Amino acid sequence: MTAINTQVRLAARPSGLPEPSDWDFTEEPIPTPRDGQFVVAISHLSLDPAMRGWMNAGASYIDPVDIGAVMRAGAVGRVTASEHPGFEPGDHVYGTFGVQEYALSDGKGVIKVDPTIAPITTYLGTLGMTGMTAYFGLLDVGKPKEGDTVVVSGAAGAVGSVAGQIAKIKGCRVVGIAGGETKCRWLVEDLDFDAAIDYKTQDVRRALRESAPEGVDVYFDNVGGEILDAVLTRLARGARIVICGAVSQYNATDGVHGPNNYLSLLVSRASMTGMVVFDYAARYGEAAREIAGWMNEGRLISREDVVEGGVRAFPDALLKLFAGENVGKLVLRVGAD
Amino acid sequence: MTAINTQVRLAARPSGLPEPSDWDFTEEPIPTPRDGQFVVAISHLSLDPAMRGWMNAGASYIDPVDIGAVMRAGAVGRVTASEHPGFEPGDHVYGTFGVQEYALSDGKGVIKVDPTIAPITTYLGTLGMTGMTAYFGLLDVGKPKEGDTVVVSGAAGAVGSVAGQIAKIKGCRVVGIAGGETKCRWLVEDLDFDAAIDYKTQDVRRALRESAPEGVDVYFDNVGGEILDAVLTRLARGARIVICGAVSQYNATDGVHGPNNYLSLLVSRASMTGMVVFDYAARYGEAAREIAGWMNEGRLISREDVVEGGVRAFPDALLKLFAGENVGKLVLRVGAD
Repeated sequence: MTAINTQVRLAARPSGLPEPSDWDFTEEPIPTPRDGQFVVAISHLSLDPAMRGWMNAGASYIDPVDIGAVMRAGAVGRVTASEHPGFEPGDHVYGTFGVQEYALSDGKGVIKVDPTIAPITTYLGTLGMTGMTAYFGLLDVGKPKEGDTVVVSGAAGAVGSVAGQIAKIKGCRVVGIAGGETKCRWLVEDLDFDAAIDYKTQDVRRALRESAPEGVDVYFDNVGGEILDAVLTRLARGARIVICGAVSQYNATDGVHGPNNYLSLLVSRASMTGMVVFDYAARYGEAAREIAGWMNEGRLISREDVVEGGVRAFPDALLKLFAGENVGKLVLRVGAD
Repeated sequence: MTAINTQVRLAARPSGLPEPSDWDFTEEPIPTPRDGQFVVAISHLSLDPAMRGWMNAGASYIDPVDIGAVMRAGAVGRVTASEHPGFEPGDHVYGTFGVQEYALSDGKGVIKVDPTIAPITTYLGTLGMTGMTAYFGLLDVGKPKEGDTVVVSGAAGAVGSVAGQIAKIKGCRVVGIAGGETKCRWLVEDLDFDAAIDYKTQDVRRALRESAPEGVDVYFDNVGGEILDAVLTRLARGARIVICGAVSQYNATDGVHGPNNYLSLLVSRASMTGMVVFDYAARYGEAAREIAGWMNEGRLISREDVVEGGVRAFPDALLKLFAGENVGKLVLRVGAD
């Protein structure tokens, strides 16, 4: 256990991919809780494509991270000291604790998690925000019906892999789009997807003609860009597109490229709807219970890709997301469980 | 009355704006009805931006017009000869009769209209397909609530002017986007819109900050392009965008430009939905009765922009739509009422 708290702060707003100079490392004494506060020793940090958006100036669905502030991040850890009536040392917790080794909290937005039910990292992934995003994005926005063809992009990622598996559980034909043969094999062999398209070697539009011959009823989009445009050409009548993210566009230095084929929405009487998981906070418990049930029954596989190296490895670990190097939920180990 | 039937046929598929060489004029004898048929002397043709799409090859929501075929067009006219039990000489009818002076019909898709209730040209506009498009696009897809801010583009056009007036009737704040001071003044002074934005002289994004300070709840889009992108930056939470058309893009020779700001759908939890009026055919009667009621009460103004000159004037008249020269519904007079 270190006597200091190492932190990663935003030093500059990146243009394109974040560079080393966009980050500052700082060291502070481990904080001491006052009345109503507690301290968490962070074990794992969540790495999310959305972080890139938080680094930009300007209004979005959440405030940007200020220059000089500790980078925002979801995290799990263990309470080490508490003057808060609701939290005791030894409690395992999830919260938006930031990219640092220790966090001081007043308990707002913090939930207790149980590492005996599932590995602690699962609470950053399938039982955490990414699982909630997949669950509500697919079911509430995508509204799949049994027999529908559901296409998921970023399908081997944290959100996509869960969204696709939930669609399978709901009786849909599921096609995943991912980069590379390893990911595609994992989708079909381990996650039971009906088909996978490797966008790095295949023409997505042509491949969809084969793997979604009746057209796409639900498209769960995590990537935007050319893949969104390709899927737009293959919509079934009344299709629903869930706009969950656009990882292909977050580092674009010449601006976001919108979907030029958007008039397919008219031809297909289809819709494209944006979703932000925070809107479903009141129903997280319900969703987590259902997902945990599917995991227990062996119907839903949760996979985390754990990067070692502590908070100082954060800048490099984040880049893995944009290089598409992770399979499943990418997390960074910061300390002991 | 001519002894011949002059027709306008598609000679070539245009690239960009249709040119004279894309059309052929042909002359045929006026057809004679056989059993189950009747002949219509067309009085007016409907001119619609959608016609440009019908001239392209490839599948859309409707088959393309074949090269050499009479150009597809909605039309009104009078039955001159009939061997059909349901239609008598003198009946006024609406149908997809094509760009010609006389049409032979078996009655499929033909409806009788009553020129004593409203001028015959109204059945091509406010009581016809454009009125139906405005009614169902706004109410069924846009789902405006009282007090919502509704923005309409192409607001001085056939569909936009009706959509905006219906939104006013439903208790919304209505902002129209149109090109030129004359159109904008008409929207505010005659149609009672709350505000109008002249996209030719104003910065739409900035103007919306003033005229839609609480954000846009419903956007009825007829134009696409830069105006769609501007409105996307001003969406209220949960906004609904109705994709009815994209007249700014129909003649683009370098492909359609999609909305680069589409990630506002995510930030605003908004949706963008395409609509095609044909899906609502079973409810046209209901809509026409309600619209006629509003017209009788003086709450909804129908305006037609009638071009004289007969079918040979069709190629030039069509271009008026893309130059934005019409106010209200553009129709071409072909013969006597």
